[in-house]
Amino acid sequence: NLEFLKGKPSKVNLSVKKTEGKVVDTVDMEDIGKQAVFCRCWRSKKFPYCDGSHNAHNEKCGDNVGPLIIKKKES
Amino acid sequence: NLEFLKGKPSKVNLSVKKTEGKVVDTVDMEDIGKQAVFCRCWRSKKFPYCDGSHNAHNEKCGDNVGPLIIKKKES
Ligand code: FES
Ligand code: FES
Repeated sequence: NLEFLKGKPSKVNLSVKKTEGKVVDTVDMEDIGKQAVFCRCWRSKKFPYCDGSHNAHNEKCGDNVGPLIIKKKES
Repeated sequence: NLEFLKGKPSKVNLSVKKTEGKVVDTVDMEDIGKQAVFCRCWRSKKFPYCDGSHNAHNEKCGDNVGPLIIKKKES
């Protein structure tokens, strides 16, 4: 019975900048146009931006992660 | 030898809004003051905002995740 392994601590980030101690990204609001979509699954090939890879991750792992959208209010 | 299990697909999000199919957050730029710090480790008690919980996760799991900072350019 390996059920207990489901609860074992796992890395969130498997491949992004693994030589860095902690991956922090800083983006200036003024450089975001109408909106930007940021990755929170750590699977994007365009990290820190979302490229839709969260969908394959969710399907494979039974997960439910998705991006953060920063947008300008509609005027 | 359970080594192979290290490579098994793991959930990134263990506890945030697990009843939702996909957790997407949308934030208006105009509602961010000077800066906002957004969680990408899915361990924050203030999700979608970072509360520093990434540090305990990184230590426990040998990971290197950190937040996304959205800020106004310094003037
Ligand atoms: S690719 Fe990571 S959240 Fe979309
Ligand atoms: S608490 Fe999740 S990135 Fe800081």
